[in-house]
Amino acid sequence: MEKYDVVIIGAGPVGLTLSTCLARWGYRIKHIDNRAEPTATGRADGIQPRSLDLLRNMGLKRKIMAHDPAKVYEVAFWDPNSKGIHRTGTWASCPKFIDARYPFTTLLHQGLIERVFIEDIEKHGVQIQRPWTITGFQNDGKDPSYPVEVRLAHVDGTQTETVRAKYLFSGEGARSFVRDQLGVKMIHKDPIAHVWGVMDGVVRTDFPDIKMKCTIHSDAGSIMVIPRENNMVRLYIQIASSTDPDWHPRKTTTQEEVQRRAKEILKPYTISWDRVEWYSVYPIGQGIAERYTLDERVFMGGDACHTHSPKAGQGMNTAFLDAVNLAWKIHHVERGFAPRSLLSTYESERKLIAENLLDFDARYAKLFSARIPSAGEVSGASSQSTCMQENEFVTTFKASCEFTSGYGVAYNANAINWSPDAHPAQHSLFLSRASGTTKLRPGKILTPATVTRVVDANVVHLEQEIPLNGSYRLYIFGGCPKKNSVALHDLATHLSAPKSFYTTFSHQDLSSKDRYHERHNPHSDFVSVCTVLNAKRADIEIADMLPELLARYQDHVYADDVWDARVPDAKAAAHAKMGLDETRGGVVVVRPDGYVGCVVGLAEGRGTVEALDAYFGVLVGRRLGGERSVL
Amino acid sequence: MEKYDVVIIGAGPVGLTLSTCLARWGYRIKHIDNRAEPTATGRADGIQPRSLDLLRNMGLKRKIMAHDPAKVYEVAFWDPNSKGIHRTGTWASCPKFIDARYPFTTLLHQGLIERVFIEDIEKHGVQIQRPWTITGFQNDGKDPSYPVEVRLAHVDGTQTETVRAKYLFSGEGARSFVRDQLGVKMIHKDPIAHVWGVMDGVVRTDFPDIKMKCTIHSDAGSIMVIPRENNMVRLYIQIASSTDPDWHPRKTTTQEEVQRRAKEILKPYTISWDRVEWYSVYPIGQGIAERYTLDERVFMGGDACHTHSPKAGQGMNTAFLDAVNLAWKIHHVERGFAPRSLLSTYESERKLIAENLLDFDARYAKLFSARIPSAGEVSGASSQSTCMQENEFVTTFKASCEFTSGYGVAYNANAINWSPDAHPAQHSLFLSRASGTTKLRPGKILTPATVTRVVDANVVHLEQEIPLNGSYRLYIFGGCPKKNSVALHDLATHLSAPKSFYTTFSHQDLSSKDRYHERHNPHSDFVSVCTVLNAKRADIEIADMLPELLARYQDHVYADDVWDARVPDAKAAAHAKMGLDETRGGVVVVRPDGYVGCVVGLAEGRGTVEALDAYFGVLVGRRLGGERSVL
Repeated sequence: MEKYDVVIIGAGPVGLTLSTCLARWGYRIKHIDNRAEPTATGRADGIQPRSLDLLRNMGLKRKIMAHDPAKVYEVAFWDPNSKGIHRTGTWASCPKFIDARYPFTTLLHQGLIERVFIEDIEKHGVQIQRPWTITGFQNDGKDPSYPVEVRLAHVDGTQTETVRAKYLFSGEGARSFVRDQLGVKMIHKDPIAHVWGVMDGVVRTDFPDIKMKCTIHSDAGSIMVIPRENNMVRLYIQIASSTDPDWHPRKTTTQEEVQRRAKEILKPYTISWDRVEWYSVYPIGQGIAERYTLDERVFMGGDACHTHSPKAGQGMNTAFLDAVNLAWKIHHVERGFAPRSLLSTYESERKLIAENLLDFDARYAKLFSARIPSAGEVSGASSQSTCMQENEFVTTFKASCEFTSGYGVAYNANAINWSPDAHPAQHSLFLSRASGTTKLRPGKILTPATVTRVVDANVVHLEQEIPLNGSYRLYIFGGCPKKNSVALHDLATHLSAPKSFYTTFSHQDLSSKDRYHERHNPHSDFVSVCTVLNAKRADIEIADMLPELLARYQDHVYADDVWDARVPDAKAAAHAKMGLDETRGGVVVVRPDGYVGCVVGLAEGRGTVEALDAYFGVLVGRRLGGERSVL
Repeated sequence: MEKYDVVIIGAGPVGLTLSTCLARWGYRIKHIDNRAEPTATGRADGIQPRSLDLLRNMGLKRKIMAHDPAKVYEVAFWDPNSKGIHRTGTWASCPKFIDARYPFTTLLHQGLIERVFIEDIEKHGVQIQRPWTITGFQNDGKDPSYPVEVRLAHVDGTQTETVRAKYLFSGEGARSFVRDQLGVKMIHKDPIAHVWGVMDGVVRTDFPDIKMKCTIHSDAGSIMVIPRENNMVRLYIQIASSTDPDWHPRKTTTQEEVQRRAKEILKPYTISWDRVEWYSVYPIGQGIAERYTLDERVFMGGDACHTHSPKAGQGMNTAFLDAVNLAWKIHHVERGFAPRSLLSTYESERKLIAENLLDFDARYAKLFSARIPSAGEVSGASSQSTCMQENEFVTTFKASCEFTSGYGVAYNANAINWSPDAHPAQHSLFLSRASGTTKLRPGKILTPATVTRVVDANVVHLEQEIPLNGSYRLYIFGGCPKKNSVALHDLATHLSAPKSFYTTFSHQDLSSKDRYHERHNPHSDFVSVCTVLNAKRADIEIADMLPELLARYQDHVYADDVWDARVPDAKAAAHAKMGLDETRGGVVVVRPDGYVGCVVGLAEGRGTVEALDAYFGVLVGRRLGGERSVL
């Protein structure tokens, strides 16, 4: 019987993202999908700013942008008036108060996005097996190393296959066989079910905002406009809704009926279609799966775990992040870096986000149906300043923008996300927002910062410098290198101590294998290291100023010498944006998926590594450090 | 006998760029190359900042960047000292005083760049015929429409072909059959011939600047280091030079000898090679062709017209710009937009640039051999400020940076590049640097500016908004739209007058052909129009504020509402960067290749269009305007 590390069911965004990560990290994968081809037209299409960061970190952004997607920078709101409809305001979709590299939503048809992933997966030797489906599975433990048996079949029933796997993952979408078999229920918080009509096409219109995202309310109904690649536009029309659990809505509204509705709603403007690429009518309710896994062997993610209205454009984005969250945890368990208990944080972290998403979905609708915001509120909500008095509207709107952009996603304190109260590792050198010693919050994404790479003087995005390689990222903000020379050397000395987290997980073949050209993982796959110094690039001599351990990562040494409009008075903008002292610096641990794990002070002596050993010790479930360095 | 618009000999950078432009604009092309395959390894590899702008304007930049080229931001200078060599300074390769979108040199092997062009050419139906060569040609005028006969043959002599063409272009490189046949001499200004060794490979070294461009002088000789894609580095070593015209240098230096030389020069640092991808030894002298064409039917460009040392990394860049300069002129003559005399400006404009390049080559060498610059000079030379006293060194260095980045390229005044003294068109509304009414200089590239596109709120690069479509670009800086409403409507009215330049060259089938989805050329292929208003995006209603002619270009209406650090106090930064009055605006005519043609005031009445008609009248060789509008 064939054995796989992971069997993945479904080649939509969640399955493909998981497959991409694990294939790159060397796992043996069986990936099936019950469709004969990737998505041809329609379906999800909105990539949020934070997701674009992630795709860039995976090296896939450029291929996605090569399709010339539409970019949505603003959302326009239209309401009825005596002439038909009129614009009541426009809002940045990712306002300036959010520190985003790409402050826009990227609109591209899901099939093109899927193909970018598939190409990458195939490069790493995995083929999606189509059209195949899952017919059964059980975690029978007959083979302790590959405890899950999975039965697969060609959709026409002519062929079957039974394989064993360490993990089974369902990215099957809203109708999940795996979820049904597990008996996991979907919880429907909002009792209203909606029927939506959606149509992609090329139009002719004098409606001035046809290239913007628009929410239009008129006496003839409501419509949402979303620009697309290839001069197309998507229209969402809410056709019907009901709270009656026995409601059986008509799902057969024709294309012509939807076009007629759109024409009515858009009056006094006119619209006609040159061609329709895709048209669908579907009912959708809000729902969330009670569990994402029962045994930490069989997992689910994406639409199999959460469904909601398409209005906020969050579906695919939540799927990406579900998959990345799970991928690195499986990797760390399988590589022996972490105990199996790490896997329990997949459900606790990602289910919280799905719950927030559903709450948000409801709040967002209410926000704009209540009343038209005043001009002062509009500018207040978009402002970078936080001094002004904010009313509830502005506060809610800001939170909404942060959430939809993906930057509001924050995981609660747990073993991975350090906190002053809840984390078992405690040490005087931990920094926190509460104490004002850092602006970073564990569980939130690392703040972006622009720095100069020392070896080639390239101006780079610090948060993107380590690719998605499955390693923790240790950002050493070295402060003033002259004043901190002892601290930096002490740090390296104690990192090299035989029982430190750094040494414990170093390559087994460290002394025998040639890794001269390895940039990110010269010593260990557990962690990659970046050093950022508060100095001009030309004043940094890596070999002279840094201890050997840090100098070995010569491609990851940066000068914090690029001015940033968000901290205009800072000399070392990256230090300042993290809220670290520009002279004394600090050490930031970032999880493999880009979220902050903990922040530690950089001090002379062994304290810094002691704190890091304590933090990682909790994560990896063993005692680290505690011995003197041999160096 | 087959007839072609253009026969192109040679598929290096100059031939491919010409082919790409003309194929897109619908010309019938025969393109041959005597190599069986595109460049496999080595050869030219430096793309300067201005060339990257051009490649982006051609829609090719993204495909080039997809190969992950090296980016050079700084150049390091190393000199001998008692220990071997030491760094005397580093310099930005494109310092901040140059307003560049991409302030770095892009390094990528020529073959990958060629393939990007070839793919695009093939999309437009042209196949490069290989390995074929030219065996003869003559402008015999036997067919007045296709006056040039060209004889071609397979390199193995088994097949021949004779075709007729409107134009023949030699992009054959330094050894040009066409140039020899025409009897055009190469002029060698610098009597020194050099022999260079060049080697691309993957190295191991402790030399700290191996990822920077370096010029290294040591007691053992000189070397130039240039980082490359794929973790490679190129080393140029000057092996020998002589002023003796009968000198026959040894061209057989082995790879091992060059490596030994490099090891000597780099001491006290060590270097060794993991692999060598390409190695070549070649003699090169500075030379420039006396003529680029004799009859304006048979043209030459690229290395066929100018050869020089590889030090400044200019070869391929000069080739790109030769080709684009010729392409649009052939296009305008063949479309009946301009008289044949326009073609004479190809030689006059491009030969000047080649002469500047050769002069620069000499001056650049002298600049750094004379003495080591002081720290004050270094910071002065890189500074954005122009207030400080500049000594000769700083002035020369700044001019060098401008030149090598491509932004110093400036064409002299002629029929296309308006000037207050030399141009036949004179009108009180022409603006000039002399009068302080604009900062733009005809013959120089349009200053970059960031603006907000009104229809979709996208933040865009104004200078890139019109693709390289062969049309003039009319940038209407509308100033304050309320105050200039009459001027904008008068402009449209007079543009619509029956004999204006705008109407004269409008589409023949304007009323019969559906151009609803045409964004750049709805009325005419002669010109594309952008309107930039000094207002916030949300305050601009295109249909209400602009006359119909300008509103038709709804995808090219912009809000000048993006703050720019170079004009921090300006309300309308794009207006300010052009040196136009932020309230009154102005009209900028940009040539199809991106260089400014003329700048005209925006005034109520017919004056603005009168001035434009006078300017274009000179270019197109006929009287324009002079009748009242019928509207």
